[in-house]
Amino acid sequence: MKHIELQRVAPADIEARSMELIGQELGERVFPAEQLPVVKRVIHTTADFEYADNLVFSAGAVEAGIAAIRQGCTIVTDTQMAFSGVNKRVLEKFGGRAVCFMSDPDVAAEAKARGETRATVSMERAARLEGPLVLAIGNAPTALVRACELIDAGELRPALVIGVPVGFVNVVESKELLLTLDVPHIVARGRKGGSNVAAAICNAMLYQASNNARE
Amino acid sequence: MKHIELQRVAPADIEARSMELIGQELGERVFPAEQLPVVKRVIHTTADFEYADNLVFSAGAVEAGIAAIRQGCTIVTDTQMAFSGVNKRVLEKFGGRAVCFMSDPDVAAEAKARGETRATVSMERAARLEGPLVLAIGNAPTALVRACELIDAGELRPALVIGVPVGFVNVVESKELLLTLDVPHIVARGRKGGSNVAAAICNAMLYQASNNARE
Repeated sequence: MKHIELQRVAPADIEARSMELIGQELGERVFPAEQLPVVKRVIHTTADFEYADNLVFSAGAVEAGIAAIRQGCTIVTDTQMAFSGVNKRVLEKFGGRAVCFMSDPDVAAEAKARGETRATVSMERAARLEGPLVLAIGNAPTALVRACELIDAGELRPALVIGVPVGFVNVVESKELLLTLDVPHIVARGRKGGSNVAAAICNAMLYQASNNARE
Repeated sequence: MKHIELQRVAPADIEARSMELIGQELGERVFPAEQLPVVKRVIHTTADFEYADNLVFSAGAVEAGIAAIRQGCTIVTDTQMAFSGVNKRVLEKFGGRAVCFMSDPDVAAEAKARGETRATVSMERAARLEGPLVLAIGNAPTALVRACELIDAGELRPALVIGVPVGFVNVVESKELLLTLDVPHIVARGRKGGSNVAAAICNAMLYQASNNARE
């Protein structure tokens, strides 16, 4: 095996060192204090600095997410991957929980019967939940479009919508729709996003909510 | 709510339409027939065309992965997110399974005692498994480095290593190490990668293994 020189970084220090390198590479760019940890964590999870340009925050969006977390909110994801990625240990400390309805057999059955996606039906399920809600949509534009319709109709009142679906069919459009709504939101403009990005944004707020030094 | 024109695509057709758009955007670029579905699915999951350039396949790597799947292999992931993303329904049709050791309490305890990452210890657990193995490493370079060491020592003989960790500390180095080994591999060169990318590569091979029309 060829010898390749590795950086000597202790396991517990890898994340901090990564965040330091990301900060250096962001250089002179200035982000509001509460947004910076979100931008950095998304870059940490993707190694894609394009997110420094495409992440859009409505005024007070991160604060709204942190407040919801501290009130024990439910985070609703549109994939099992995003659900897996959310730090549920920290969320549960605040009395919160994460849910994903995508694999529920009755959601699949209803979606099939109505000719909708499971993601669409999932958001209707979310609208029936009690208590503060954070929607973390990292995959399906159909989920985001339905959430926007329900919000516009006054049937869904999330504390925050994380609108970061990824892809090629109605993805850009679904995000532009969210940007027109008067609801706290964090959006990755354009085609990029993903379950990993949705989870990273949740975790950045979870760590801020717990005043954790992790950025 | 502002009216935004959406493309009318039936739920069942969204993925096919996305793949079509990705194919168009790849334009004149030519990929070997078995690699193309992998490249396209990674772009589908990230909306990042850089993967068309940074994915590197050893000769016969995709074929090796498909053969392992058809033999009922175990796919070992280094995150719960990648585990969630692998299509286990298709994998189980072939008698295979996916495992992730990262949340096992004894892995955490051993890692702490030895000053290693859980990902390192996870790969040592993988080396003890029977039957054909596919390693799907989408997060931790420490997992990939340890896997390379074990392979080099003859203690781990995976049918395929998917080396797509993401990040800033030893990520590039861990992938360059894998590229020097005589083991079938698929690598996302550079810093980019992720759990979603690892799962997408697995799924692209799973769909090929089942001769599924999905690209």
